[in-house]
Amino acid sequence: MPDRNYRNKLKANTLLVAKRIVENEGLGALQARRIAQEAGCSVGTIYNLYDGLDDLIIRVNSGTLEDLGAKLSGLEQSATGSLADNLTAMALAYLQLALDSQTAWRAVFEHQLAKDKTVPDWYREHQATLFSIVEKKLAHVVTDDQQRKMAARALFAAVHGIVSIALDQKLGDFDYAATQAQVKFIVQSAAKGLVEQPMQSNASTSGYAADVSEPDAN
Amino acid sequence: MPDRNYRNKLKANTLLVAKRIVENEGLGALQARRIAQEAGCSVGTIYNLYDGLDDLIIRVNSGTLEDLGAKLSGLEQSATGSLADNLTAMALAYLQLALDSQTAWRAVFEHQLAKDKTVPDWYREHQATLFSIVEKKLAHVVTDDQQRKMAARALFAAVHGIVSIALDQKLGDFDYAATQAQVKFIVQSAAKGLVEQPMQSNASTSGYAADVSEPDAN
Repeated sequence: MPDRNYRNKLKANTLLVAKRIVENEGLGALQARRIAQEAGCSVGTIYNLYDGLDDLIIRVNSGTLEDLGAKLSGLEQSATGSLADNLTAMALAYLQLALDSQTAWRAVFEHQLAKDKTVPDWYREHQATLFSIVEKKLAHVVTDDQQRKMAARALFAAVHGIVSIALDQKLGDFDYAATQAQVKFIVQSAAKGLVEQPMQSNASTSGYAADVSEPDAN
Repeated sequence: MPDRNYRNKLKANTLLVAKRIVENEGLGALQARRIAQEAGCSVGTIYNLYDGLDDLIIRVNSGTLEDLGAKLSGLEQSATGSLADNLTAMALAYLQLALDSQTAWRAVFEHQLAKDKTVPDWYREHQATLFSIVEKKLAHVVTDDQQRKMAARALFAAVHGIVSIALDQKLGDFDYAATQAQVKFIVQSAAKGLVEQPMQSNASTSGYAADVSEPDAN
């Protein structure tokens, strides 16, 4: 099927062009007209290959998550130290990726879908695969599946908060050493808490009570 | 000095108008022309009263930080529980503020100054005052000044990360209970780690080593 083959090649090529634009100039520079020009096809072809620019952006961002996944998997396979050391290595790899690929990394968090659209299932599954690398590390200290998922996401979001506040210079000039110290403090605290007081299936006895109440009206 | 008085009133009034626009419609809706129209003055007057829109935005954001400060100070003065309870109450107050004032809260983090401009000292001092509320809580478990500052900022950024990832729906639909559980997990872990292993002046013996290395070239 030469047609299918041609279409696949064109799709891979336009994705590469889009990736390069996002990596070099950020999400704001990504326009169908420009991709078409640089890939040597028509604007109509872009919309034929992709379900709009959103679809293309999600695929570019997915590539950035893949780079992160490759880094984390590598660390996971070579890990020998304590839980704190393993999680710290992963968190610092995240800081490094954000630093090395700042524009592509920002695109993952800047991109907001229109309110009537939803993130495709395959992207959510891709994210879940990433988190499963962290969850695997937590398996011995968080026995409950839901709690383990919560803990992995909390750790990720906490580290992400430290990295993004630092790179956005929200609390002063970016300081690599200070950022690294903050990441270590949060990750090592959490690991220490988990090792000393593992989270059991019965969350209410774990010390990290997942008891929740509705938001109040304040 | 009636002129000075008039100027002050106009300045307060334009700030109120700007606040209302940011709170209701977000940073993107803030334009000098619109503020002038709603405050009943000329566009030139806006630029006479403020050092550009950036100055005005920083003052609006400063008001949002003041609201947070008032909440945290109230919690600080009425606090009786453990460090974990105190810090958790503050973190959940932050989640609540972000939820209740989502547009104004976003403006604090969305606003980026032009590269040739710097955030004014008074704004940084304002931020430092906010952090001092958290630092006060940590005084007994983090004796070193620099370490205490680091820990307060790490805790804030970690909680902010969880809140913003959740509100931006980056990992799925916003779920209040799940977000609250994540916030509690991170804050209670850190508090637990600090109570059991206080951070001394000599950071290298604290278990939360602030030892740092330069970013590698990977």
